[in-house]
Amino acid sequence: MASKPVWEQIGAGFVQHYYQQFDSDRTKLADLYTDASCLTWEGVGFQGHKAIMEKITSLPFQSIQHSITAQDHQPTPDSCVMSMVMGQLKADTDQVMGFQQTFLLKNVDNKWICTNDMFRLALHNFGA
Amino acid sequence: MASKPVWEQIGAGFVQHYYQQFDSDRTKLADLYTDASCLTWEGVGFQGHKAIMEKITSLPFQSIQHSITAQDHQPTPDSCVMSMVMGQLKADTDQVMGFQQTFLLKNVDNKWICTNDMFRLALHNFGA
Repeated sequence: MASKPVWEQIGAGFVQHYYQQFDSDRTKLADLYTDASCLTWEGVGFQGHKAIMEKITSLPFQSIQHSITAQDHQPTPDSCVMSMVMGQLKADTDQVMGFQQTFLLKNVDNKWICTNDMFRLALHNFGA
Repeated sequence: MASKPVWEQIGAGFVQHYYQQFDSDRTKLADLYTDASCLTWEGVGFQGHKAIMEKITSLPFQSIQHSITAQDHQPTPDSCVMSMVMGQLKADTDQVMGFQQTFLLKNVDNKWICTNDMFRLALHNFGA
């Protein structure tokens, strides 16, 4: 049986862990970011562990559930792993919404951390 | 007047150039990739300049038009620029479809090239 490439295992493992933590207790995401990490959330930028966790923990919903539609992973020339996720989420009693998120993962001190994170709700206008 | 951060100028410039070339003559995208580049197109991976350009030029439509809904850019710890794009496209006479695409850009020999590229059509199923 052919095993998956290592970058795919790393990316898929991160993605599973990230959304599991996000949906159950998002304060635990703190371990994934460092002071060099960047988050862009709906077009607004946050730099560093403290600012990122303040943003994530202050998001205005009580419960959230992500489901992943598709995920892609690639190795980068600098030995990082880039992961792109497409999915749907349901926050509190709001309607289901699509989202997209991209992560760049880097091995620092023998641990994979998230150096770059971009999130957008998928709001398309297919009108004429 | 505050100018935009340099990584945002690089990312936005690349994105504008990429879709302009893609929509007018996609053989010209060849300059943007190297043998170390990776493309994942709808979940299928292509490695290196030749394989990537074969995929892009063999896509089965005559005309295509992209319009960008949102784009985000970040600097990475390895001096790259990560860009995430959300948009809509119209190929030939097909209906308009949403897409998402992520690029990782690296400065090689004083030129910004695309080391990593991931593309997905935004096909969500919002059924019960």
